[in-house]
Amino acid sequence: MQRYFISPEDIQGQQVRISGDDVKHITRVMRFEPGDLIICAAGNEVSYRVQLTDFAADAVFGEIVETLQEQSEPEVKITLVQGLPKSDKMDLIVQKGTEAGVSDFVPVETIRTIVNYDAKKEHKRRDRWQRIAKEAAEQAHRLIIPEIAEVTTLKEWLLQKSDSYDLVLLAYEGQPLSDRERQLDGESGLGDKPQILACDSLRAVLNGFPQARSIALLIGPEGGFDPQEVLLATQQGARPVTLGPRILRTETAGLVAAAIILYHYGQMGG
Amino acid sequence: MQRYFISPEDIQGQQVRISGDDVKHITRVMRFEPGDLIICAAGNEVSYRVQLTDFAADAVFGEIVETLQEQSEPEVKITLVQGLPKSDKMDLIVQKGTEAGVSDFVPVETIRTIVNYDAKKEHKRRDRWQRIAKEAAEQAHRLIIPEIAEVTTLKEWLLQKSDSYDLVLLAYEGQPLSDRERQLDGESGLGDKPQILACDSLRAVLNGFPQARSIALLIGPEGGFDPQEVLLATQQGARPVTLGPRILRTETAGLVAAAIILYHYGQMGG
Repeated sequence: MQRYFISPEDIQGQQVRISGDDVKHITRVMRFEPGDLIICAAGNEVSYRVQLTDFAADAVFGEIVETLQEQSEPEVKITLVQGLPKSDKMDLIVQKGTEAGVSDFVPVETIRTIVNYDAKKEHKRRDRWQRIAKEAAEQAHRLIIPEIAEVTTLKEWLLQKSDSYDLVLLAYEGQPLSDRERQLDGESGLGDKPQILACDSLRAVLNGFPQARSIALLIGPEGGFDPQEVLLATQQGARPVTLGPRILRTETAGLVAAAIILYHYGQMGG
Repeated sequence: MQRYFISPEDIQGQQVRISGDDVKHITRVMRFEPGDLIICAAGNEVSYRVQLTDFAADAVFGEIVETLQEQSEPEVKITLVQGLPKSDKMDLIVQKGTEAGVSDFVPVETIRTIVNYDAKKEHKRRDRWQRIAKEAAEQAHRLIIPEIAEVTTLKEWLLQKSDSYDLVLLAYEGQPLSDRERQLDGESGLGDKPQILACDSLRAVLNGFPQARSIALLIGPEGGFDPQEVLLATQQGARPVTLGPRILRTETAGLVAAAIILYHYGQMGG
């Protein structure tokens, strides 16, 4: 059944008012008529089956016929703190993360972020991400629209926000160098290999936080996090974790980690 | 360190020969010179550190300085049997699935597949997918290049191949209708709701197969599987599983399920 997000203030008693772009979708794309049923999610984890009643030029009205007992929102809220990637990869990250169950996104500039920040385009860019999140949330049967925070720096986020989570995870590729690698490191150009840091497995860390209900997940941009950032994050309590021996691209890592975390806590259907 | 796939026959004793498109990458993109180190994966789960020695017009030669003990291939082999999706989504599926650790891909035509099959372009399309798999495998530090099978029909695959796996999973969106939904179903247009099928959680099924080492994962195209296909698949021993209450797009479902399966079996870094 077709789904639309509305605001709680669009509900008066049993009456629902739908406005904005969704009006065109209801009338022209779906060609709904009075009597047809849709699902409206109020964005606060509550959803209703709504029977359409009246059509005006700029709004469609309906009546709630049932409050649904949908439980598609995970009990564990994941905030994806994503190092800004190149080109339009953030679009994919927002869309796929929303499908998987990410609760909100914080795009951050990091030391190795290559994107040119353009304050003028900032508003437009965030609007686009928010629109992608809305469409993905409708399609995925989410009961909230994940919020896209304003772009900030990783440092600022770590200093100001990181302590409000039960658990902060930092995905890190570091793996121990072999003895031969250490030897060759002296001989040739291995100097750009990232500094090695002891990483726990994701499972080991999650097992230590069985009651976590809010988790921030830090994913670096294409070049990864700078060792300074890893140091600051760990000083702020973040736990570096490995996602295994296969190196995931920045636009894949958050989605994969979020899905695994939700599975770990029984939030992917059991 | 830059990685290249070679064939086992390109290794003679300690000498390695690299040919094809990688020559241009080594000489023009990376601008490597004799003495530089690369990693060569022979495609059979073995990899080497190689020091480049000689450069010819159509080949680059090197010497093995170390056989690496990399273990990036999962012990659980996942075959992603993917209902052909629209437009270029299969490119994304191959790329992301390769990163996550899928071992091979079988694109299948299903009842609800909308793609126009064009035998003339088939060869070209498969070449492109195979090239995407190779690039993703190099980037992800895989030790094999996942193979893309020729396009077949789901029915044919089920009848001919499904019994060669320890476990065949079919991702299915079916969830029980509420009482009110059943009531409304009689009253109005709920008739197109897919037939409901008892689905187990992915975890429940995986827990029943602790020793599974080869798993086929069936993912429907945009419109999902037709009930006939679900019936045939279950008759052939496939286990329908839900990936939870959030509906994943076809290009997301395989990646998410593969990552979760590998995590379940301890193949994502622990």
